Amino acid sequence: MNPIKVGLLGIGTVGSGTYNVLKRNQEEIRRRAGRGIEIAVVADLNTELARELTGGEVEVVADANEVVNRPDIDIVVELIGGYGVARELVLKAIRNGKHVVTANKALLAVYGNEIFEAAREKGVIVAFEAAVAGGIPIIKALREGLTANRIQWIAGIINGTTNFILSEMRDKGLDFDTVLKEAQRLGYAEADPTFDIEGVDAAHKVTLMSSIAFGMPVQFDKAHVEGITRLSAVDIKYAEELGYRIKLLGLTRRREDGIELRVHPTLVPASRLIANVEGAMNAVLVQGDAVGATLYYGKGAGAEPTASAVIADLVDVTRLHTADPEHRVPHLAFQPDELSSVPVLPIDEVTSSYYLRMRVSDETGVLADITRILADAGISIDAMLQKESREGEPQTDIIMLSHLCREKQVNAAITKIEALPTVLSAVTRLRMEELN
Amino acid sequence: MNPIKVGLLGIGTVGSGTYNVLKRNQEEIRRRAGRGIEIAVVADLNTELARELTGGEVEVVADANEVVNRPDIDIVVELIGGYGVARELVLKAIRNGKHVVTANKALLAVYGNEIFEAAREKGVIVAFEAAVAGGIPIIKALREGLTANRIQWIAGIINGTTNFILSEMRDKGLDFDTVLKEAQRLGYAEADPTFDIEGVDAAHKVTLMSSIAFGMPVQFDKAHVEGITRLSAVDIKYAEELGYRIKLLGLTRRREDGIELRVHPTLVPASRLIANVEGAMNAVLVQGDAVGATLYYGKGAGAEPTASAVIADLVDVTRLHTADPEHRVPHLAFQPDELSSVPVLPIDEVTSSYYLRMRVSDETGVLADITRILADAGISIDAMLQKESREGEPQTDIIMLSHLCREKQVNAAITKIEALPTVLSAVTRLRMEELN
Repeated sequence: MNPIKVGLLGIGTVGSGTYNVLKRNQEEIRRRAGRGIEIAVVADLNTELARELTGGEVEVVADANEVVNRPDIDIVVELIGGYGVARELVLKAIRNGKHVVTANKALLAVYGNEIFEAAREKGVIVAFEAAVAGGIPIIKALREGLTANRIQWIAGIINGTTNFILSEMRDKGLDFDTVLKEAQRLGYAEADPTFDIEGVDAAHKVTLMSSIAFGMPVQFDKAHVEGITRLSAVDIKYAEELGYRIKLLGLTRRREDGIELRVHPTLVPASRLIANVEGAMNAVLVQGDAVGATLYYGKGAGAEPTASAVIADLVDVTRLHTADPEHRVPHLAFQPDELSSVPVLPIDEVTSSYYLRMRVSDETGVLADITRILADAGISIDAMLQKESREGEPQTDIIMLSHLCREKQVNAAITKIEALPTVLSAVTRLRMEELN
Repeated sequence: MNPIKVGLLGIGTVGSGTYNVLKRNQEEIRRRAGRGIEIAVVADLNTELARELTGGEVEVVADANEVVNRPDIDIVVELIGGYGVARELVLKAIRNGKHVVTANKALLAVYGNEIFEAAREKGVIVAFEAAVAGGIPIIKALREGLTANRIQWIAGIINGTTNFILSEMRDKGLDFDTVLKEAQRLGYAEADPTFDIEGVDAAHKVTLMSSIAFGMPVQFDKAHVEGITRLSAVDIKYAEELGYRIKLLGLTRRREDGIELRVHPTLVPASRLIANVEGAMNAVLVQGDAVGATLYYGKGAGAEPTASAVIADLVDVTRLHTADPEHRVPHLAFQPDELSSVPVLPIDEVTSSYYLRMRVSDETGVLADITRILADAGISIDAMLQKESREGEPQTDIIMLSHLCREKQVNAAITKIEALPTVLSAVTRLRMEELN
């Protein structure tokens, strides 16, 4: 059988990784897929670089529109990123009856509903394993491996840049700004790291996982997003003393009244496997009602790990492109006419435990005032740490860990605590998850 | 659409788990699969118990042959176990054109080639996610998620009983026999635990993973199998001092001259995530050339975790049973006419690092003699630990960790070492894997 023909849009890091792995392992891949997979054309604005990377073995064009319009192309691989031109090209490819493989989480988290609907109308597949957690086959696990389960929650370390920064901050006791510069120097953070460090990238990914887990349309605009830029080294240290690690988690949880969907720095018990995921590695922990907890760990970025996911999708599409749509796995795991309209809860309604750090005058009655406010708000305390004040310094840090409560409860209590004359600065509040 | 009809053979632990999860989550599963999945008949010798477990809602028969012969049954779920009657029933179901879902690793590791060939002839699917690592979707990850990769090796904690025993031995410093009794009391080990503690169960599972990873027929008879029955607490303690944990690993590795396929207690660096998998949990670490290392962790046994895998297979079969066989994933990941005849290497040819513990007279020249023998055999030493001899005791333990060498090299050297008059007992030899 002739090889299936692929048009590659964008030959940057992941694009060249995809080209290289497909070439190196073509025999092994053909033995699995039952058919060869061939990149027939590459579109990149930098045609010279594209020619160099492909050794002149593949046709190179500057205009991606040429590729999505070519009748001989079966699958378009979109590795341009962003939601400007990439969206136009993906929709055009779909309208032309082509299957699409993409690593573009931003595009799917924001425009996924439109794209999946267009694909459904044309009977084509949009595959996106590479969009979440790089080489870890987490989309396949969620969408096919755990179909028996009512999924309860997902917690993921799904951004390597921030996990690298947090690991370094903890290891070396350094501040965020210092470590960010080091990460940029080492290539773990981009020149403009905003999407990573502000949690946006993780929010794109957890939005996709949430939809697949709970069977609802993608709704990135409902996600609560906090990054790690305001995290201070002292909280990492106190967390450690209390037996916790701080990780930037993408979290989504099924609740009776809706779905929680949030990204923020989170205290996790140090004994959990996921708390020990260090450096730029990714891991996703999924809780299902039948299977219990399962964890998926690996490289979440980089040329070849991401290419691994892109090519796995190419093999899936190669296998299924001539099958009836009903034989394929639905884009969002659930049949498109079976998606649920369960609401995503506003952050005020989220339930969590909390870490509260307060700078207080070292005088009688401070603790009584604070604990009274918390008790009145119905917030109970699970653990407390009071640091001895330094010699000659009439103030100290109090750290409290709460039991589960609603975010709005804790926010109201914090406002009252900050109004106390003995509380000397804003209360630092971090969320905490037991993950069991 | 009418629900797809399933016949369940055997309603023990996993069977009743499957029944319960399918019933509890039927709506969620139907929304995913696009069609209901209904257990229409249960076969079990204990018909009374079967009726009780299914609350009289399902037809119960004593003779499993009735089920595999019934024209209205689309899928047969085999949960009888073993390779006697289970083999007959599975083959009969296939001959009758039924798809089969099974959790039976023993059956597939030993008779898989015959069964997959029969299934191919009839154009039916034999799905077996539940056969390896319970609820962890490792078969799907290997067979579909990592198709881009030339897989290099797999190392798995794939037997919960032995991992529980090893965890307890380390935690509490107890001997194997003591912990085994505790495990039996707690239900972590069966009354006859032979298959678990002798490594046979793990060998069945790694045999299946090996075939899928490297595209070769199943060949359980070529696996090297060692259990944990002769492991002593002192080696766990010394390993710990040297920065290692001892785990029963199922290992398979691609080498230039063939495939390694082995199960044995293994020293693993304590810093590896897999070394920290405790109790009855399972984890599989897979090294691919593109993706690098990925790890899959979860419950490897139990009613509902295993049911989770059985039902995921039911959903896959429901989706694909009317598709052409070419649209389905091949049983052993590679197209059946593309399986390789690469040999499984005998254990003598395996390459590993080694832990050697020797009981020696505490006298001059002992160490010189031993290190000379190792040097002459081309074995270099990576680390050494000599324990101070106890007061009044003229003998002591020497522990050496070797660099990589062939098993036959190390065995020949051990024979010579044991012949030294200063070496007072048999040398304890354990294999060691860096897993990086």
